Amino acid sequence: MTSGDSADINPVNIVLADWGTSNLRLWAMDAAGHIRAEHRSDRGMGQLNRDGFGPELDRCLAAMTVPADTPVLICGMAGAAQGWHEAPYLDAPCDLSAIADGAVRVEHGGRDIRILPGIAQRDRTAPDVMRGEETILYGLAQAGTGDARVCLPGTHAKWARLSRGHLAGFRTMMTGEMFALLGEASILRHTVGISDWSDDDFAAAVAEAHAAPADCLGRLFGLRAGPLLFGDAAPSGSARLSGLLIGAEIATGMAAGDEPLCLVATGGMAERYAAALTALGIDFDRADAEDAVRNGLFAMAARIWPERELLETDA
Amino acid sequence: MTSGDSADINPVNIVLADWGTSNLRLWAMDAAGHIRAEHRSDRGMGQLNRDGFGPELDRCLAAMTVPADTPVLICGMAGAAQGWHEAPYLDAPCDLSAIADGAVRVEHGGRDIRILPGIAQRDRTAPDVMRGEETILYGLAQAGTGDARVCLPGTHAKWARLSRGHLAGFRTMMTGEMFALLGEASILRHTVGISDWSDDDFAAAVAEAHAAPADCLGRLFGLRAGPLLFGDAAPSGSARLSGLLIGAEIATGMAAGDEPLCLVATGGMAERYAAALTALGIDFDRADAEDAVRNGLFAMAARIWPERELLETDA
Repeated sequence: MTSGDSADINPVNIVLADWGTSNLRLWAMDAAGHIRAEHRSDRGMGQLNRDGFGPELDRCLAAMTVPADTPVLICGMAGAAQGWHEAPYLDAPCDLSAIADGAVRVEHGGRDIRILPGIAQRDRTAPDVMRGEETILYGLAQAGTGDARVCLPGTHAKWARLSRGHLAGFRTMMTGEMFALLGEASILRHTVGISDWSDDDFAAAVAEAHAAPADCLGRLFGLRAGPLLFGDAAPSGSARLSGLLIGAEIATGMAAGDEPLCLVATGGMAERYAAALTALGIDFDRADAEDAVRNGLFAMAARIWPERELLETDA
Repeated sequence: MTSGDSADINPVNIVLADWGTSNLRLWAMDAAGHIRAEHRSDRGMGQLNRDGFGPELDRCLAAMTVPADTPVLICGMAGAAQGWHEAPYLDAPCDLSAIADGAVRVEHGGRDIRILPGIAQRDRTAPDVMRGEETILYGLAQAGTGDARVCLPGTHAKWARLSRGHLAGFRTMMTGEMFALLGEASILRHTVGISDWSDDDFAAAVAEAHAAPADCLGRLFGLRAGPLLFGDAAPSGSARLSGLLIGAEIATGMAAGDEPLCLVATGGMAERYAAALTALGIDFDRADAEDAVRNGLFAMAARIWPERELLETDA
């Protein structure tokens, strides 16, 4: 995928969409892989009922002035049972290229719209599911990532094991949701909510939880007791809560293999995880999550619609 | 402390109260340690502002027809900074007999009312606090518990190390609060909330988390994914959530010493923890939490008001 002076001479050929629980992101692409327009909406699956997806997509496509005959490829929660149209899970382990074959077609306004499946791990001791992250992983593989452990931070962080386009397995950690619940709804809110962030306190908590992840749950109440006993001299509650949860997550994720680590995130979340890994002395590559999901969608669109002659070679 | 035919011949000599965050329990006792009346209220600290404690106590004492000159001894959150009247923490390690010396007197309606302090652990690496549990521990020590690890389940479970009336240290685990938050407010609520309880699934989850407590956080999302993938054939979500959290708690608590374990709880919580410990093959003694807190209060009342000639020997 490239960008450059030629971007203004090719028409929109395909629309790519990452439709998650909280957000919808769309990119109108030309056949050479240039972004011709992009659009964001906060109408994720969580804000829509089944009948709301089509009109929302129409609204976004109109805002991007996309022609009526341009196909749309969607990944993420739009394909969940409670989404727009269910795209049944593929089963891991699997080759990620199989995702494109599992796309389901949605009937809506005569446009060719496909939704990609998520991936299920039907392991009774470690059942797990993903929707959207499989497309990020495919984007990484297309960009040349070989054997890797991939860390995808988030509300439900995923750690996946990737080997040249093959997904060996994965695990979801509820790190982001735990941080929000404990910081906003538990007794810790009294002290976490009012605390300033401290990079040093974050790094110390990461190291502590990484060294003894079994003790993570047993250290949480200290975020309440510390400020009660030491006032402002206590460590930052928010930095410490984040550090304890991320440190424990990294310990669990790193225990599951020895491939090189790739951190795939965007914005502040990317910086926070990078700081945690750096504090632990763990080497890692980085990739941008938005670039990866768009690359993955583009490469799958090329498989689904070969007649559109999308230029996969740039991806 | 005894009960028997003589209970109806001695007048009320003292009132004991355990005033927690959610509830208030009161016992009117005679000098021989018999319960002459008891009363419960759901007006814990969480439901009262500072001016509400006195009237609520009056209401309860009237319901128990307690004479105006009968002293009242209170333990628990009534002594917190945000409670009725702050009773500053004692510092652990400490002899539990020192609690009585830290009681603060409350001016209210001419009655002799004292509130017992909690205990703080001013350790920067493991800061912790308790209010109420110190009185339970004193009650256990009075009843002859020597060297012990004591497990006190609850919203904020406490694990304490006790040696003949000396408190060496303690740790709070937010097990009960985590169970409620995850089961009611997280994505797990969709599957945990609708599941039937299963003793077998509980025992299996306890064993799993106890064997690998570092993995506890990484197993939680499976409570969502399992029912998505296996439907009714998936383990009980509520039993598994409880089991994972309690199993991890027990692993942490048991790692902190090798004294005999004493489980101090009441009702369904006592049964659940007993089942967990039994599933793990861990030997333990049991004590009733209500008996222990009442015994502790009675023994401290005897120290605070020697002129009332309370019979400590029965305790």
